[in-house]
Amino acid sequence: MENLLVLQSGGPTAVINASLAGVIKAGFDNSKKIGKVYGSINGIEGVENQTIVSLELFNNDENLRLLKQTPASYLGSCRKKLPALGEDDGLYCRIFEALEKYNIGYLCCIGGNDSMDTANKLSAYAKQTGKTIRVIGVPKTVDNDLVITDHTPGYGSAAKFIANCMRQIALDTDVYKMPSVVVLETMGRNAGWLAASAELANDSTLSAADIVCLPERPFDLDAFLAKVEEVSRIKKTVMIAVSEGIRDKDGNYIKENNPRGDKFGHAALGGAGKTVESRIAGQLGFKTRSIELSTLQRCFAMGTSLCDVTEAFEAGYKGVEFALEGHTGVMPGFRRISDNPYKMQIVPLNVCDIANFEKKVPEEMISQDGFGLTEKFREYALPLITGEPELVYKNGCLQFAPSVI
Amino acid sequence: MENLLVLQSGGPTAVINASLAGVIKAGFDNSKKIGKVYGSINGIEGVENQTIVSLELFNNDENLRLLKQTPASYLGSCRKKLPALGEDDGLYCRIFEALEKYNIGYLCCIGGNDSMDTANKLSAYAKQTGKTIRVIGVPKTVDNDLVITDHTPGYGSAAKFIANCMRQIALDTDVYKMPSVVVLETMGRNAGWLAASAELANDSTLSAADIVCLPERPFDLDAFLAKVEEVSRIKKTVMIAVSEGIRDKDGNYIKENNPRGDKFGHAALGGAGKTVESRIAGQLGFKTRSIELSTLQRCFAMGTSLCDVTEAFEAGYKGVEFALEGHTGVMPGFRRISDNPYKMQIVPLNVCDIANFEKKVPEEMISQDGFGLTEKFREYALPLITGEPELVYKNGCLQFAPSVI
Repeated sequence: MENLLVLQSGGPTAVINASLAGVIKAGFDNSKKIGKVYGSINGIEGVENQTIVSLELFNNDENLRLLKQTPASYLGSCRKKLPALGEDDGLYCRIFEALEKYNIGYLCCIGGNDSMDTANKLSAYAKQTGKTIRVIGVPKTVDNDLVITDHTPGYGSAAKFIANCMRQIALDTDVYKMPSVVVLETMGRNAGWLAASAELANDSTLSAADIVCLPERPFDLDAFLAKVEEVSRIKKTVMIAVSEGIRDKDGNYIKENNPRGDKFGHAALGGAGKTVESRIAGQLGFKTRSIELSTLQRCFAMGTSLCDVTEAFEAGYKGVEFALEGHTGVMPGFRRISDNPYKMQIVPLNVCDIANFEKKVPEEMISQDGFGLTEKFREYALPLITGEPELVYKNGCLQFAPSVI
Repeated sequence: MENLLVLQSGGPTAVINASLAGVIKAGFDNSKKIGKVYGSINGIEGVENQTIVSLELFNNDENLRLLKQTPASYLGSCRKKLPALGEDDGLYCRIFEALEKYNIGYLCCIGGNDSMDTANKLSAYAKQTGKTIRVIGVPKTVDNDLVITDHTPGYGSAAKFIANCMRQIALDTDVYKMPSVVVLETMGRNAGWLAASAELANDSTLSAADIVCLPERPFDLDAFLAKVEEVSRIKKTVMIAVSEGIRDKDGNYIKENNPRGDKFGHAALGGAGKTVESRIAGQLGFKTRSIELSTLQRCFAMGTSLCDVTEAFEAGYKGVEFALEGHTGVMPGFRRISDNPYKMQIVPLNVCDIANFEKKVPEEMISQDGFGLTEKFREYALPLITGEPELVYKNGCLQFAPSVI
């Protein structure tokens, strides 16, 4: 009987291991068709180097539950991009030798764009060389930038963290009488989905994201400062989210490396958040604080979205089922049936249509002045952050899956 | 019948409103002795300016529950320190005029060191001038630096957030093969309790805080770098927590304003975390990332400690009971009965013994080399971060109490 191998690559998320749990569970649930369930350590590099481990310890509900709530890539990751077919045949030979050695009939690559590229190349190579292995790409990325699929596992939980941070920081900032400005910098170099999620902080009782700056629109400093001033006239605390990827009209990142200071004497060094902070403080005179969520926004597992965790698991599970049905070179993607009630369907999408493309926030979701999101965005994103999973803690600490190595 | 007035001051915490809820609940529960329950907006300034509101909307279990999970100071805050008695009699007269106008018999000041000072001065002034008002200081501070009391509400939840961040960032950092170093900067200018809480991230399966630097020990860069190197020999990812307040042997803060860069060419500008980051990267050559938790560590209410929330509520509740028993100028403080099982007693402590003193991490809790904590610290701190409250969410966002103004 052929075996199942799973690997993870790219940047970690809070729910990438929920997808891993889904793959593993499907492997054990289909024990009539699948022999062993293996994991490769550090992505495709682990296949090449044959650092391959049995995942038998997850044939156990409690361990599987812990795996679902463990952030970051449990099996490690890599950033290796496979060469084009024909460019380094030796590498492909080594990979397929390892796959044959372990009698792998089903390979699941959990990851973002680069992993879809990996799945694409491996399935193409297999077809070319007449091998029967079925290769599935299981989607994950906090950036939500995979095309065709409605959204990507990982995004919902990161978005929920960002929205809730905005809300909590808004309250924290508002306690004093003095007007002040907070700039929260989010990840997202080309696609503004993460910055956009700050919008979800707003509701009828609280405006916790007054201005949102996305990389989809050129950043115009004068218009931005005018907007900050406009909000400050009606609100004591101005809450701003900026994507790390904002650029000016010439395409230059908004960041500075000007250690001698700007013309207002504010020395500055840093990314979008710090730069915007120094401009607001320097030119408008407001007390301003910038906050970088850094890696926390992708690995924070104490406040994940139940929708996201559930879908991440299902994407992994469904990936194995697609392989068993004979699919190869596909990714379980999400097709939205309705917003309210939220209904989603998981369908096989060809990875060759997904790898190396990038989905940005569409114009219809961005407000006219470019400093906010439309109702369309809320309708799209709100279901993705909804629901709270029950989590296992011990001594006040979120518990993780036992180590496999 | 005399009324109850409550105010909040100093920096926000995730559970200061749980204490507010406790005060309010005790007010309503004692309706035979207490008339109305009022809140002052923006601390003692709100008393002076008579911005005083009824808190009747919290005579409602659902609203009270939401208040308990709302971070930051619901009634706003101020940083005003009252002058010494005799120095500005006009101010004291205005405050007591307002208190008499609202027929306040019981005043609860929720806050840290400065609020204890306020409670101290107001109760002393009342005694001097023959007024019967009873003034209670209800403790809160993430810094955990109030003396005599075993610990302070607010610390447990901040400590839990820090410990869990260390654990999650440790996993996130460990996914690649490359060795790397993370430096997490925590609050705590003089007392190292918050940085110390990183130690709670460690358990038998995970070393998520390898080095902890407290302001209680002078920061010796060479010894520190040697320690980083030592850990890096046995561990791929070196996890470090530093207090923002670390200082060298001459008492200078470890921060730099050297925009032209150090001798290794690394421009640097920032606090302890950034400075330590640039030293490690520059002198040891490791890939290093520093992360500042900023205000999140004090206002993050999605992962509070049940122990902390419960005790914060009880401190508020007990404060009102102490006032009804005739106490004035006291703070409900915590006296530990036992570590395991954790047992705590709330007792009245004189605020004059607490205001303007500062409790640091004692020597017996710091490891010999100064880069870690002892088992004594774990025994002390672990119970404080334990337990998870049930929280109310809507649309993926933690819900807050309705606004009173």
